[in-house]
Amino acid sequence: MKPKIRQILDMNAFSQDSAQTMNSGSLLSRRLKNFGAASVLFYRTPIEMIGGHGARLVASDGTEYLDFYNNVPSVGHTHPRVVEAISKQAAKLNINTRYLSRVVDDYLDALKKTFPDDLDNILLCCTGSEANDLALRIAMQRSGNRGFIVTETAYHGNTLAVTHISPAALKKDPLPDHVIAVPAPFSTIYGEDLGKGFAEAIKGAVDELENRGYGCAGLICDSIFSSDGVLSDPPGFLSEAVAVIKNAGGLFIADEVQPGFARTGTHMWGFQRHNVLPDLVTMGKPMGNGFPMAGVAAKSSDVKRFCEHVGYFNTFGGNPLAAAAGQAVLDIIKEDGLMENALLVGSHVMAGLNAIREKYLQISDIRGTGLFIGVDLCTDGDPDRPDPTLATDLINTLKHRHILIGAAGKYGNTLKLRPPLCLSIKEADIFLDNLAQGLDTLI
Amino acid sequence: MKPKIRQILDMNAFSQDSAQTMNSGSLLSRRLKNFGAASVLFYRTPIEMIGGHGARLVASDGTEYLDFYNNVPSVGHTHPRVVEAISKQAAKLNINTRYLSRVVDDYLDALKKTFPDDLDNILLCCTGSEANDLALRIAMQRSGNRGFIVTETAYHGNTLAVTHISPAALKKDPLPDHVIAVPAPFSTIYGEDLGKGFAEAIKGAVDELENRGYGCAGLICDSIFSSDGVLSDPPGFLSEAVAVIKNAGGLFIADEVQPGFARTGTHMWGFQRHNVLPDLVTMGKPMGNGFPMAGVAAKSSDVKRFCEHVGYFNTFGGNPLAAAAGQAVLDIIKEDGLMENALLVGSHVMAGLNAIREKYLQISDIRGTGLFIGVDLCTDGDPDRPDPTLATDLINTLKHRHILIGAAGKYGNTLKLRPPLCLSIKEADIFLDNLAQGLDTLI
Repeated sequence: MKPKIRQILDMNAFSQDSAQTMNSGSLLSRRLKNFGAASVLFYRTPIEMIGGHGARLVASDGTEYLDFYNNVPSVGHTHPRVVEAISKQAAKLNINTRYLSRVVDDYLDALKKTFPDDLDNILLCCTGSEANDLALRIAMQRSGNRGFIVTETAYHGNTLAVTHISPAALKKDPLPDHVIAVPAPFSTIYGEDLGKGFAEAIKGAVDELENRGYGCAGLICDSIFSSDGVLSDPPGFLSEAVAVIKNAGGLFIADEVQPGFARTGTHMWGFQRHNVLPDLVTMGKPMGNGFPMAGVAAKSSDVKRFCEHVGYFNTFGGNPLAAAAGQAVLDIIKEDGLMENALLVGSHVMAGLNAIREKYLQISDIRGTGLFIGVDLCTDGDPDRPDPTLATDLINTLKHRHILIGAAGKYGNTLKLRPPLCLSIKEADIFLDNLAQGLDTLI
Repeated sequence: MKPKIRQILDMNAFSQDSAQTMNSGSLLSRRLKNFGAASVLFYRTPIEMIGGHGARLVASDGTEYLDFYNNVPSVGHTHPRVVEAISKQAAKLNINTRYLSRVVDDYLDALKKTFPDDLDNILLCCTGSEANDLALRIAMQRSGNRGFIVTETAYHGNTLAVTHISPAALKKDPLPDHVIAVPAPFSTIYGEDLGKGFAEAIKGAVDELENRGYGCAGLICDSIFSSDGVLSDPPGFLSEAVAVIKNAGGLFIADEVQPGFARTGTHMWGFQRHNVLPDLVTMGKPMGNGFPMAGVAAKSSDVKRFCEHVGYFNTFGGNPLAAAAGQAVLDIIKEDGLMENALLVGSHVMAGLNAIREKYLQISDIRGTGLFIGVDLCTDGDPDRPDPTLATDLINTLKHRHILIGAAGKYGNTLKLRPPLCLSIKEADIFLDNLAQGLDTLI
């Protein structure tokens, strides 16, 4: 029997049920009172963090954790150049985009150079959720359709419209009728010709959306399929599915919130690994190394059509402070060679994981590219017997060894490894050693 | 004949049609290429801003503008204490709320003290749009209904769900069937007993939502009715409408993105002027003086019910950087006495405007409280003949006099005055003198 399907916010999470004996004046108690049921905290005993640098986070008790999880502070926690860019710009000016500001257009000119030429407009907003919400609307406007296709453990954000296309966020309610979720692109599901099998599933979903009367507005994929369990290979497997969508008059939306900004080690954007041309690209998380910023790269013709109906203005989106943070991130990626580092250190981690796998039957699969890696844990290495309990135990064991990792996948049995891109070989080795030792203590 | 109804983003705006002769390498040209049709720029000739302090903005040509428009940098442009708070925290740690952070709960404890006791949870996000999107969903979850009531020139943000309740954002499309817009609370529309008249309109909308099969999930009001044209008085007029909504099983959502954080001069929140108890309060814009942050104050029981269905996590929402900025804003409002200053200087502006009105028949009404003021311009002072052309001309004339103001209202004929709360009496006088002289040159 497979374990129950996990809702994304429940993975590796503190449970409020276990908080009965908590000191009522403690920080944890205050957090639970402030956020209420929306407290989403990591670990059976949450950690109070007070500092960070590079790939390290510092807790209030002085413990330094090796951060193998957080992909937002992608160029490194409190990177001095990002801090300086934010501090300097904050002292100079922070205002909305209804006035011109050179720092904003310098940034956009630089950012646009990383995209295919036909994505010639960039709409700036503040969160990946806002970016995906906007992308859905542009897709509906151009296609004239309302139906969307997603993968079955997809998570694209938290607005009403975006929750509708995020099966991993729904605890009780079914997907709405205008959204169809197909199984994520595992070769164990679609067979050896993954591209063809996945494209056939997409074609079936397109037909079903037609039958239901919505038509196909688009396919939206996180091009690394993070919440589905990190599905990276083989590069190119998305191209046939994208062709199916375009033939159906729908748009392909590449959600680059997770794989974007060089994390995959070989390209700035995940869709480039698949050699496809998206109609819309959304980005967020590492864009400002934690400064709240996000965006949609789109064709000017689509933006024009959309703006004839509603227009778009975002008060905080693209302010000079965000642009300064974003520019610093682009500069650091380039000048510190972080894409190359992600490939180098990521390959080292993959090799180390494969060596560990030989000792442990419980590791049934290792997938990933650059510094985005998923490790499946299963009973006796049988993919049909996923072991989320082992994943949770291992995550908590590694925490006690001062290493932070997370979980993903439909059953929560996939270890999710996404350290800052500045990770060193030495830090990778610390992780690998502790993972092996942690497995030893649990198995 | 009344002028055409204005879409909110068209007011006081640069028109791309007039950009034909523009230098192709200019910053304006780059902006239009980067943002495309989503370029929303102020003024017939947009201004490049490079700096700001207090209630002043500095343009690239060295001109210093008196800012009578921007309500986001509410404690003053580049306020040193906000800059310091952001810079210090950015150098220390910026991480998501899945870890505990004392700065976050210190801030939330302080913020919660400004709300009625029963709003005991605060969900932090990044934009007012996200806050309103979340509030709509919590209201639907509690009420079990899907219908919403808004005012007819309301603007609540830019997600798909929030655009549906923002008639001022729609250029072509009608409101969706589950949303009913009632005329904004003008006594010229509802008669002398504004509260009773408005409540009757709300009751009619509740009944209509029942007839349409949606039921009433809630009434959402910007409690200063900014985009409707600034409707502040008499305090208390909202209470009967709120009672109607609660009787119907709907929620009252106070959108405090505009009036919140002491702008009205007498209270921290606009709904407090009306002596009503909202079920949900949304906040944004001035919350971090321009740092992207927003939130929803809610009852823990409603948050619990909501989270049983989908949960809520916002990657950037409530990070320690946002909390540091927000805490600085709360501290400055209190320690610099900005609420008292808003009342004092706002009353001075009102008195000055009333004196000017005696000379100009074109000013048909002046409304407002604290530093949130609307001034209607009409032909021969006849409210039935609104004059948006005069408003636009005056806005551009004042720009040439180095003063920034904006427009609002269904016909775009209401001058919208919302300077930073640190405005001095002397700066108010500069505005009043220039307004009078500007009117002289135009009439």
